Amino acid sequence: MKGKETDTMEKIVSLCKRRGFIYQGSEIYGGLAGTWDYGPLGVALKNNIKNLWWRMFVDDREDMYGLDAAQIMKGKVWEASGHTGAGFADPMVEDKKTKKRYRADHLLQDIGVDAESMTLEEINAVIKEKNLKSPDGNELSEAKLFNLLFPVHMGSVADKTSVAYLRGETAQGMFVNFKNILDSFHPKLPFGIGQIGKAFRNEISPRDFIFRTREFEQMEIEYFVRETDWEESFEYWRKEMLKWIELIGLDMKKVHELDVPDEERAHYSKRTIDFEYDFPFGDRKELYGLAYRTDHDLGGHTQGSKVDLSYYDQDKNERFIPHVIEPTFGLDRTILALLSTAYTEDVMGGDTRIFLKLNPLITPVKVAVFPLKKNDKKLQKKAREVYDMIRAEIPEVMYDDNANVGKRYRRQDEIGTPFCITVDFETLEGKDGPKDTVTLRYRDTGAQERVSIHELLATLHAKLSTKR
Amino acid sequence: MKGKETDTMEKIVSLCKRRGFIYQGSEIYGGLAGTWDYGPLGVALKNNIKNLWWRMFVDDREDMYGLDAAQIMKGKVWEASGHTGAGFADPMVEDKKTKKRYRADHLLQDIGVDAESMTLEEINAVIKEKNLKSPDGNELSEAKLFNLLFPVHMGSVADKTSVAYLRGETAQGMFVNFKNILDSFHPKLPFGIGQIGKAFRNEISPRDFIFRTREFEQMEIEYFVRETDWEESFEYWRKEMLKWIELIGLDMKKVHELDVPDEERAHYSKRTIDFEYDFPFGDRKELYGLAYRTDHDLGGHTQGSKVDLSYYDQDKNERFIPHVIEPTFGLDRTILALLSTAYTEDVMGGDTRIFLKLNPLITPVKVAVFPLKKNDKKLQKKAREVYDMIRAEIPEVMYDDNANVGKRYRRQDEIGTPFCITVDFETLEGKDGPKDTVTLRYRDTGAQERVSIHELLATLHAKLSTKR
Repeated sequence: MKGKETDTMEKIVSLCKRRGFIYQGSEIYGGLAGTWDYGPLGVALKNNIKNLWWRMFVDDREDMYGLDAAQIMKGKVWEASGHTGAGFADPMVEDKKTKKRYRADHLLQDIGVDAESMTLEEINAVIKEKNLKSPDGNELSEAKLFNLLFPVHMGSVADKTSVAYLRGETAQGMFVNFKNILDSFHPKLPFGIGQIGKAFRNEISPRDFIFRTREFEQMEIEYFVRETDWEESFEYWRKEMLKWIELIGLDMKKVHELDVPDEERAHYSKRTIDFEYDFPFGDRKELYGLAYRTDHDLGGHTQGSKVDLSYYDQDKNERFIPHVIEPTFGLDRTILALLSTAYTEDVMGGDTRIFLKLNPLITPVKVAVFPLKKNDKKLQKKAREVYDMIRAEIPEVMYDDNANVGKRYRRQDEIGTPFCITVDFETLEGKDGPKDTVTLRYRDTGAQERVSIHELLATLHAKLSTKR
Repeated sequence: MKGKETDTMEKIVSLCKRRGFIYQGSEIYGGLAGTWDYGPLGVALKNNIKNLWWRMFVDDREDMYGLDAAQIMKGKVWEASGHTGAGFADPMVEDKKTKKRYRADHLLQDIGVDAESMTLEEINAVIKEKNLKSPDGNELSEAKLFNLLFPVHMGSVADKTSVAYLRGETAQGMFVNFKNILDSFHPKLPFGIGQIGKAFRNEISPRDFIFRTREFEQMEIEYFVRETDWEESFEYWRKEMLKWIELIGLDMKKVHELDVPDEERAHYSKRTIDFEYDFPFGDRKELYGLAYRTDHDLGGHTQGSKVDLSYYDQDKNERFIPHVIEPTFGLDRTILALLSTAYTEDVMGGDTRIFLKLNPLITPVKVAVFPLKKNDKKLQKKAREVYDMIRAEIPEVMYDDNANVGKRYRRQDEIGTPFCITVDFETLEGKDGPKDTVTLRYRDTGAQERVSIHELLATLHAKLSTKR
């Protein structure tokens, strides 16, 4: 099973590079570990997901305020939030010979030991007891804690006072702007702040393609409630997250809710549900998280900044620090999960066919238009007319006249284009009127039907607005 | 003149904070110089501009490929591009007493000396000759070059080999992916790569609000041409940039083209036009840039990476390194220019009124809906119906029932909402049918008219699709 899954992972990585979804960062210089560049189709897919998320969770809600905070934040922010401490560090061991460094918990996991809730001392005890060696077979150093924040020296003096950090999570941008939102908009509880943006973690060993990276993108909500309401709100957001997972078309059979036990939760959380996914690298891992962060952050920043981050309830004449429910959606992990849900091989016309069964709502190219033959001017002219007509209403349309139609279908299949339209000689014979038809071909089945050009836009709109 | 302009700048900064467009980064901790957080209205404005740009320059063109490269790139990328050298450094002087540091060229500019094309030696000669003092009246150190890239240590060993950099411009992400785009899409020259994203520069003295910051966002195109075609392409892109400037509604009288003289151009450019803007802080400064980068970048990376970044022209059987035309659009500067174009004060009903005359295409809130009175249930119900009807087609609609209608109009004026709709008692009397009308009020004139609810959506769509 794991063998087959790993195989799929390699196929996805290869397809992503070949077809222009995702490339290794700084690739021509040998690559920079843990960074990835989204190519033309990748950025289109990513933007579609971001726009859909923003629409559902920010624009379509009256209780949500959008934010785009700076990615570099002052050192004091991260001291108050607890991220400069042990709560945001991973246990690291070094191969004494090669000097390569590894996550100790990952090495233990590889030999079947779950180290997630272990202290550093316990980890070292197991390493000693099992006489654990590095992947290269050498002796390991003692495990030490390694902090994940990237320091950045701002200004022209590189001393301790000028240390800022690339944000380790988007969340803190929302907490430090809590009072700004109160002052500008006077919202009433419950309300939330939503943000999409990059975050950065100095992972000791980035791996599994875009799953564990050093630069990644989050879609995140901090939802502020009265303490007494936290359980109700937590349950509400759990359901909203499931709605989202269903909307974008993830395979629900691969999604699993894990109520994270006390000893494994992040330092700020009193309850956490991980939405795990059966990823194509063969592991069930965290896709999304839902955390009850209590008043840890607003309280911590009130202490740290000496700025009062409490909320005043006019009706009840009460002042208090709100509690927080946090739904977090990893954007890159969403893309990996979607690609692995969508990746399909079947046999068509005697050949193995690869296609991405992506939801039309988010697929990068919605429609492709072909003239049957490249060198026929009349076909080209007519196909261009059809293309321009579609483009005016559906911008994500592609024109392709390269190679034979069979190859073009295969190319569109590989990038997940749900509908291909071919202008052929029958189209030209039809002139205007009801016989003026084109071939509409469906990605998932390969089935084809003739559709009148006059009805084409209405047909496409209807098919694209259906959820799957 | 300068006094009045500076005054406008302060008013814009204040409005941005008060109404939730832009806040100081890490503000509750005293702020982090050169970083800004976009609040709910700022992020909406920013997203509208980004979407419009992407539509015009990427989606609506068949010759453009979108990209979203990692923000952290390998050290070797920046060595090959020349950014680790003197070409990407500013002259810095230190106040010998306070130890505060300043841009030497800015201090010289303040006493009327244009230092932009001066060498370090020349700058030091002028400082000596004029006996220039710091703003605090103290002696200055010699000027030194200060590099603007932010180093980031990736991985767990902080040595020289692990130095990467936060990108100083988005451009390099496109150059290092040039071959990937060729391999995935086989485009023919001329074609371009377009990208929107953050870039970072360690400015010695960030200033003028979101004009000179350490973290900023660029919308950028690298357009690849044959060397012989560069002038034609340069002229084409000059006009495209002017079209964009007009489309978003900048004040054309404040836009000036500057053909940058030889000695002031960036190290990679053979011709540059700066689109300058009369900014509200009283200076005419660079808004956008159009540069002919020759084959500097693809050539440099071919040398640096040993990966061949040439292009093969099948028809002519030629292989060569393409030349590059680069139109760059600063996103934060766009927003500052737009706000300063839009900021208007007039007198209405005897009072001074502030309003943002933003183009409806990009304004964060398109329509606001009010019930005339907050406490009337029938008015509330009807206003909600109207609001829901509009929201189904125009998501950027706001509901407001707080305080009297006059105050609500003023609030919407301040954030640039072009249309306000009030549901009043006449609406209720109309029941259904042609008499079922609401008040439609226009931001720029304050004029009001009654519009039938049945015609409301068509009226709004017509007005919103007009360019200004």
